[in-house]
Amino acid sequence: MPTADDHRYLKGAPVAARILAEVRAEAERATAEGFRPKLVSITVGDVAAVDVYVRNQRSKAEAAGIDFEERRFPAEISADELEAAIHGMNADPRITGIIIQRPVPAHIPIKAIQAAVHPLKDVEGMHPASIGNIVYNELDLAPCTAAASVEMLKATGLELKGLEVVIVGHSEIVGKPIAFLLMSEGATVTVCHHMTRSVAAHARRADALFVAVGRPRLIKADMVKPGAAVIDIGINSEATADGGTRIVGDVDTESVREVASWITPVPGGVGPVTVAILLRNTMVALQRQRALYRSTYQADANSSVRRLRAG
Amino acid sequence: MPTADDHRYLKGAPVAARILAEVRAEAERATAEGFRPKLVSITVGDVAAVDVYVRNQRSKAEAAGIDFEERRFPAEISADELEAAIHGMNADPRITGIIIQRPVPAHIPIKAIQAAVHPLKDVEGMHPASIGNIVYNELDLAPCTAAASVEMLKATGLELKGLEVVIVGHSEIVGKPIAFLLMSEGATVTVCHHMTRSVAAHARRADALFVAVGRPRLIKADMVKPGAAVIDIGINSEATADGGTRIVGDVDTESVREVASWITPVPGGVGPVTVAILLRNTMVALQRQRALYRSTYQADANSSVRRLRAG
Repeated sequence: MPTADDHRYLKGAPVAARILAEVRAEAERATAEGFRPKLVSITVGDVAAVDVYVRNQRSKAEAAGIDFEERRFPAEISADELEAAIHGMNADPRITGIIIQRPVPAHIPIKAIQAAVHPLKDVEGMHPASIGNIVYNELDLAPCTAAASVEMLKATGLELKGLEVVIVGHSEIVGKPIAFLLMSEGATVTVCHHMTRSVAAHARRADALFVAVGRPRLIKADMVKPGAAVIDIGINSEATADGGTRIVGDVDTESVREVASWITPVPGGVGPVTVAILLRNTMVALQRQRALYRSTYQADANSSVRRLRAG
Repeated sequence: MPTADDHRYLKGAPVAARILAEVRAEAERATAEGFRPKLVSITVGDVAAVDVYVRNQRSKAEAAGIDFEERRFPAEISADELEAAIHGMNADPRITGIIIQRPVPAHIPIKAIQAAVHPLKDVEGMHPASIGNIVYNELDLAPCTAAASVEMLKATGLELKGLEVVIVGHSEIVGKPIAFLLMSEGATVTVCHHMTRSVAAHARRADALFVAVGRPRLIKADMVKPGAAVIDIGINSEATADGGTRIVGDVDTESVREVASWITPVPGGVGPVTVAILLRNTMVALQRQRALYRSTYQADANSSVRRLRAG
């Protein structure tokens, strides 16, 4: 049995470290130029379940030179009140990006709340306009998990142009954005899901296989093409023989490892890259806000629109 | 050789007529309730090439009870001036939807101009937020040609859930939106393009094949699965033996007809449905504007957001 150092394991840590180093350099430059990046994390209600994620985001952000502030709202807050609070953050020039930690209480409509975040502050890449921009080949502000999964594929060094990619799972925040991102890179993409007649038939012809359905060990060795890259985005809890639990992905890692050329472990694969992408998105958001600032003030001097309106 | 009445021909006219009848009924109802729908068509520069399209849009709109106004701008207009004019139309309550006729002169950035149309008045479904909403399974305001192509597939009566769909062409306004629309309907979708290793291998396994690449007669009979539905979105000009020209699609219709169970002719297939979808989108836009109107005035009475802001 291979050890954890098996070269077929495609680990997230080195990919995340490279991205974080780039973010840090850019954050330092922006801070020196008068634009210090800052994230605000919104949690609603009892947040014990997300505390570990928020702590991790804070420590990575601060290490990268990005301020991080937590704002906690009571579980009883109304959707209107939460939306008003987000509008206040949109209008606050000290805030670069806004993260809405999930889950939120059932009475909060999560999509409407995410759409309340201004697209220029949407570091999670969840606003409909952010998603639409990916379709239009503006790829630099994508949903974090989807972008992290694509970074893992790029880390293999495979040529994306013409690559046969199969994605199992068609969620709005993972499966579909991966599809658009890779279409824009020139891959031939197929998206499968629970209504697909034979997921196995598609999976077996994939040079790169992405799996994001939340079903432990769904993908077995006989569903994978020899030499493929397998990117496992599932996070599932599984009972162990001794009565405990462990985290496993959507791929049966031990058996698939014997067939694939690359496989991302769970945990330790896509996960660590996701927060690095969140911070990279923060810098993308900051640059867009700076570009808007520049164009607004430049426009004052010589805009024909303003002359037209004044006339 | 089959006649033009061959039952394998999937014609657009009856599909368009059904949609237009629904639009007319809805437009009459809305007008009676105080919301008369109105489209504004924007052309920039010498518009001879688009005149026939605009005339067709006008006659179909007026027949459906939707007002239609043409606004023509000189070729020398700046992008800033055009954007300002669109912002004025966004703010005009008498205008339901805005169409930007293509092509526009080279100095006008078409994507930026399309994004200047307010998403609630984006009847062409071209705004990034409109595209993003499709990804989020809100399918009722999609790019017209893509939505028309999907309507043609639906006209076959085939069950979309689990249907193996292959799309040749990955443009932002046709190929990709068809992909999202059909993913949301439960189809298993593959998108091919000029970087795909073997378009034929994918095309041959498709229950439904969409082609939108602008290459005359690209798809031959040996690339089509027997019994498939073939939706031809290409519009190409081809020289005839007598020195004239004729319009042909991206599919070699005469040969593919012998293999496929349904094939959309060019012209007379997807084309007539596209303008019907434009008018249906106009009614969707109107209903969204009415919903915003209602919620705005209802909110005045009892919004907790307003109480919060006042407090």
